[in-house]
Amino acid sequence: MAELPIEHEPSYPKTDRSRIRRESHLGSYLRSDVYSVVDASPLCHVGYVIDGESFVTPTMHWRKGNRIYWHGSVGSRFLRQVDGARVCITCSLVDGYVLARSALNHAVNYCSVMMFGSANIVEGLDVKEDALRDFMDGLFPERWETLRPVTEKELRATSVLWMDIEEATVKSRAGDPSDADESGVPVWAGVIPMQTSLTNGHPAPEVPETIALPTALANLIASGRLR
Amino acid sequence: MAELPIEHEPSYPKTDRSRIRRESHLGSYLRSDVYSVVDASPLCHVGYVIDGESFVTPTMHWRKGNRIYWHGSVGSRFLRQVDGARVCITCSLVDGYVLARSALNHAVNYCSVMMFGSANIVEGLDVKEDALRDFMDGLFPERWETLRPVTEKELRATSVLWMDIEEATVKSRAGDPSDADESGVPVWAGVIPMQTSLTNGHPAPEVPETIALPTALANLIASGRLR
Repeated sequence: MAELPIEHEPSYPKTDRSRIRRESHLGSYLRSDVYSVVDASPLCHVGYVIDGESFVTPTMHWRKGNRIYWHGSVGSRFLRQVDGARVCITCSLVDGYVLARSALNHAVNYCSVMMFGSANIVEGLDVKEDALRDFMDGLFPERWETLRPVTEKELRATSVLWMDIEEATVKSRAGDPSDADESGVPVWAGVIPMQTSLTNGHPAPEVPETIALPTALANLIASGRLR
Repeated sequence: MAELPIEHEPSYPKTDRSRIRRESHLGSYLRSDVYSVVDASPLCHVGYVIDGESFVTPTMHWRKGNRIYWHGSVGSRFLRQVDGARVCITCSLVDGYVLARSALNHAVNYCSVMMFGSANIVEGLDVKEDALRDFMDGLFPERWETLRPVTEKELRATSVLWMDIEEATVKSRAGDPSDADESGVPVWAGVIPMQTSLTNGHPAPEVPETIALPTALANLIASGRLR
């Protein structure tokens, strides 16, 4: 059978960098798992190295196929120095605290993904605008067309970066504490869920009362999704 | 006037590494601001460098004075290689989406802190146990005494790391969109808050019905805090 192009392999490769050493039963290299954590996370943390030292910056991101995008001001140190550099992008969602009968069996229910690749800057104002439109469409469907159009000056002041995911690992934990065998210890044990949700939007004071919250936004808030 | 010891300076120093370049009005170097973001965040992202490449790992943390702690298995690559190394620890809390009249005036309400220092491993089983107790007491008051005691084997299998915060910067944004002057554009603008909360804990199936959720945990859930 012919090999699939790497984009179509169902899993990312296990490399020395990405291989999960600890509790590997909690891990996955599946693209579908990677994408689902990326798409559910409202923000990511981008790690990069300047002069041998680590920097970790939180930012919003979006994804198209195997490519992660993020943006920022052209003036930021982060975006000026990171072009072409190796980066690690991590998304994390906490689902709850897991309380066990002994301190070190306490845990967190969570899912996270750690992704490796090289950061690149999107070149060309049209391509940049298309990418930003993808960002908006992914967050707030149908909104882009209703906005005051983007100006060339705004586009020139904004950098958009991308990274093709070369390696990635998902880790997650779910469910009850793992020490049911210690149930003789007379202490409450279980899960305290942590939930993040969008709540009803409140309009800025200058918005006329005739302009209601658009249905697409009301649907997003009602969906329980964060994006 | 004599100089205060650095621990008592109200602000962290502005250095080439930590100085905020962009939108510096959103920033703070105040210890009190740094600590308040650290203490409100359920997890942090630790950035470190191995063989010149960036790694970003999500983990829970706790703080005592100017020192941040985190823990993990002694077997993890992360904890074995990071001792003495420079690290960047970032905590981020998203408060909501800010929708404006034009795409590039959209924003996020958030607060985040980026901290720099060196990672060190806690030596000594007693000191390690004390640190883990601080972690538990900070999350779940009064719980430690009710648990099955920690064993020496468990302590030996666990690493606790710490970093004294040498430099730190807080960035935050709050409030309505910044483009009230474009209110002639007929589109909804405002804030869609994002809220994270703990919800009612559910006991593991083997916990006897006679053991109720402790008051301290019920109070934490009711408080609206995450820790």
